[in-house]
Amino acid sequence: LQQKPWLSVWGPVKITNSVLRSLGVIAFANNPLTGLLILVGMFVGNPSVGYAALLTGSIAVLTSKALGAPDGLVCDGVTVFNSVLMGCVVTAVFPHTQLTADDALHYWLAIAAASVITCYVDLGLNALMAPTGLPAQSLAFNFVAAVGLLAVRGKQLGHGLHDVTAAAAEAAAADAAFNATSNSLYAPEDHNVDWFKVMEGTVLAVGEVYGVGSMTPSILIWLGFLLYSPILSCCFYVGSLIGCCMGVVLSPGPLSQVYAGLWGYNSLLVAGGLSYFLRPSLNMLAAVTIGALMTVFVQAAVLPLFLQTEVPVFSFPFNIVVITVLAIGTQKGTALTFLVDRSFH
Amino acid sequence: LQQKPWLSVWGPVKITNSVLRSLGVIAFANNPLTGLLILVGMFVGNPSVGYAALLTGSIAVLTSKALGAPDGLVCDGVTVFNSVLMGCVVTAVFPHTQLTADDALHYWLAIAAASVITCYVDLGLNALMAPTGLPAQSLAFNFVAAVGLLAVRGKQLGHGLHDVTAAAAEAAAADAAFNATSNSLYAPEDHNVDWFKVMEGTVLAVGEVYGVGSMTPSILIWLGFLLYSPILSCCFYVGSLIGCCMGVVLSPGPLSQVYAGLWGYNSLLVAGGLSYFLRPSLNMLAAVTIGALMTVFVQAAVLPLFLQTEVPVFSFPFNIVVITVLAIGTQKGTALTFLVDRSFH
Amino acid sequence: LQQKPWLSVWGPVKITNSVLRSLGVIAFANNPLTGLLILVGMFVGNPSVGYAALLTGSIAVLTSKALGAPDGLVCDGVTVFNSVLMGCVVTAVFPHTQLTADDALHYWLAIAAASVITCYVDLGLNALMAPTGLPAQSLAFNFVAAVGLLAVRGKQLGHGLHDVTAAAAEAAAADAAFNATSNSLYAPEDHNVDWFKVMEGTVLAVGEVYGVGSMTPSILIWLGFLLYSPILSCCFYVGSLIGCCMGVVLSPGPLSQVYAGLWGYNSLLVAGGLSYFLRPSLNMLAAVTIGALMTVFVQAAVLPLFLQTEVPVFSFPFNIVVITVLAIGTQKGTALTFLVDRSFH
Repeated sequence: LQQKPWLSVWGPVKITNSVLRSLGVIAFANNPLTGLLILVGMFVGNPSVGYAALLTGSIAVLTSKALGAPDGLVCDGVTVFNSVLMGCVVTAVFPHTQLTADDALHYWLAIAAASVITCYVDLGLNALMAPTGLPAQSLAFNFVAAVGLLAVRGKQLGHGLHDVTAAAAEAAAADAAFNATSNSLYAPEDHNVDWFKVMEGTVLAVGEVYGVGSMTPSILIWLGFLLYSPILSCCFYVGSLIGCCMGVVLSPGPLSQVYAGLWGYNSLLVAGGLSYFLRPSLNMLAAVTIGALMTVFVQAAVLPLFLQTEVPVFSFPFNIVVITVLAIGTQKGTALTFLVDRSFH
Repeated sequence: LQQKPWLSVWGPVKITNSVLRSLGVIAFANNPLTGLLILVGMFVGNPSVGYAALLTGSIAVLTSKALGAPDGLVCDGVTVFNSVLMGCVVTAVFPHTQLTADDALHYWLAIAAASVITCYVDLGLNALMAPTGLPAQSLAFNFVAAVGLLAVRGKQLGHGLHDVTAAAAEAAAADAAFNATSNSLYAPEDHNVDWFKVMEGTVLAVGEVYGVGSMTPSILIWLGFLLYSPILSCCFYVGSLIGCCMGVVLSPGPLSQVYAGLWGYNSLLVAGGLSYFLRPSLNMLAAVTIGALMTVFVQAAVLPLFLQTEVPVFSFPFNIVVITVLAIGTQKGTALTFLVDRSFH
Repeated sequence: LQQKPWLSVWGPVKITNSVLRSLGVIAFANNPLTGLLILVGMFVGNPSVGYAALLTGSIAVLTSKALGAPDGLVCDGVTVFNSVLMGCVVTAVFPHTQLTADDALHYWLAIAAASVITCYVDLGLNALMAPTGLPAQSLAFNFVAAVGLLAVRGKQLGHGLHDVTAAAAEAAAADAAFNATSNSLYAPEDHNVDWFKVMEGTVLAVGEVYGVGSMTPSILIWLGFLLYSPILSCCFYVGSLIGCCMGVVLSPGPLSQVYAGLWGYNSLLVAGGLSYFLRPSLNMLAAVTIGALMTVFVQAAVLPLFLQTEVPVFSFPFNIVVITVLAIGTQKGTALTFLVDRSFH
């Protein structure tokens, strides 16, 4: 399929292939069937997220071709996945369903434009990181999503900081008044940890990567990963487990965020990313464990800083940790070896 | 002139040449006549800014010679322009005219010292960025100006954050009470956008680059740029137009800041910088447009973060965007080509 | 000693040697006797800090060997000193002596884990900085300590920002009520600067580097440095002097922080670091002076930002300035020359 010309009847097929692969590549699983299962999961969990993936993915394929990105990277979805991630996660986070029809149109036009911009930022960041020999992972998604939300938030709410303490008190009061259901993100803090729900969180974490944090989509996505590589899936789960359990220890807020998988997805990605990019060895396994642990601490550390601006941490913790640990593998003689060909770059 | 020795009667002429060129190089226009028009504009708009340019420029020429910067870069003002920018913008922002004679002397000594420091920082940042093949643009000015203002502000106002919400409310109340004139930065928000004033802002933006945001200096500076290159001036204007129009959409505050050109100068510099450093092509034009758009969003995103500390955004948005997009042009095969010889480095 | 195998009876001796050297290398003084004097100073000033040094140092030697760091760097303590610094400074800052026996065990286990993580971060950061040709100094310590404290603080105090203004007012009121002793960090501000105490601060600054800011340990540490190199010690003192005197000018808070040496240690390290890594010359001396000056401003600038989160500035100001100025020395033709072999890397 890679041999076929883009400007032929094969064009739409090639674009679909790239978009599906990009969905997998978000979690290092370069396989269109994995991508298809993820896409089905999205439509089951939140159709808007699915549409966002198709819209931003197609635009990113065309933009990166126009920008002259290497053909192999475009076909494999490597130049596409940051745009897709931006589209899906922003659509999941932003209350776009409450918009009027008119504003909804503006919303989708803005997402389309942001998809183009994400391609530029991704190519630029990879060029800036080229001397280190490492790919820029999903930094482009993180920067574009954070800048976009910050810019729009200033317009809507003014430039003051979010009063985290007051907001927490309000949420607790509201919870008490309305007798919050167990699904509420702001349930009164359980003093007894519900470990069954923590285990549920370790499964849901994989859905949170794609902005669809409910059970059915998460199971579909796990199936997609198992299909691609049981070993990678295993590392993902170890990461998710470390993230969710440490989240119980480190999260200051209600444990419902741990139960929802929000403390697991960054560690999941780090564990998977390190197992994917590093040569298999005992040292690699140690790095996977330690990397997942580091990620929970980074998440706990940056969370208060992000909360003041109401911007989610996205996958900043994953990017910081995975780039730092992979860098060890670029130096000769160290116990870790970065597999350059794995990065597709 | 470049052949003449520095330690001769030609010395003062060479220094003057470097300082004038540096004024142009701030906006990529390496020409002493352009610099002269800019300097005249400064003296017309705010004589202190003009004196600051001469003081910091001369010191920067001597410092960068002493530090062993390449002679060509010194002659072209490339090692000088960050110091000049620091001197002009800090002088424009800092209420130094309210100082007593004694404190004023301290102020000018501090600016002179900061000019030396800016040379060190500029050489250092360019060395750190050398592996990427890109120059460090005006990052040195931004870092030194931000550090200086933050340090002095802590001394004067203590270490608390600026209460943006209260300040906005106070400003609005003061406006209402005193029946603010149309020049006030905190005019009660116009619900009808005055597009004539927005157009005025697109012209004033060029003055804001140099810290002199009134009409006569801005026109003199535009003349200087037209003299150097009508095409570059055209790109500047497109950037300014995109910045000011998007500023109307994204600015949460009073539109008077848009009317003053404060939402235009970063986009202006990005559009000009990309057209200057990239090989002319349709892709370059697309990058110019998209870069200018990105810049407004970055400015809107970082503004709330900067406001808490009362430090202006300076040209951080320009630097972030221009470096990211130019980086694409350093990679082979992409649709953009970075013109290395243009960077003088 | 470097020739002996690690897995022999020489093992413990080699580990001790590396740990002692790492204590010196924190301040560029690679000598086990200097390290011994520093260790004695720690046990005199705060035995917990001494135990932390031995614990984290030993773990870091083993971790960096396991990670395949170059043997020479491990023997010289270069891969060890960030972990040691993390252990000592966090132990000095964190109120661990108020913990119950059970929590104290958790504390020491956490420090041991953080020591392993610091090794990973240090190797990773050095790999990321490899293209610039400069070592990553003590950035790993700074990142791990800041992330750790931020993560734990969120758990204990929630995610709101620290109200600096209220805290300052409270402290002042408490001081007035309890008739604060001269040792209190929040003594009512002296309007007359006590220059004798400022001079005391220039001596204590060297203890603050290691988290033991009292007189006897500081004198022992100065002796250790004099033993290694009187010239280096001289540069240290010049830096400390510049830092403390400028701290009097720039510190907005009570001068007791200046008297304690907290405004001196970053400048001390910058002056020492530049004199150590740059080829001796008049230009080097100018860089030492200007670098120490820059450091005080950077410290004054970042202090308000750090205060909101209650995390100390650690040695971030030192790292920012020393890396920027040393970078000038990596470029050919400049007046400064970075001595590559000095970095051990």
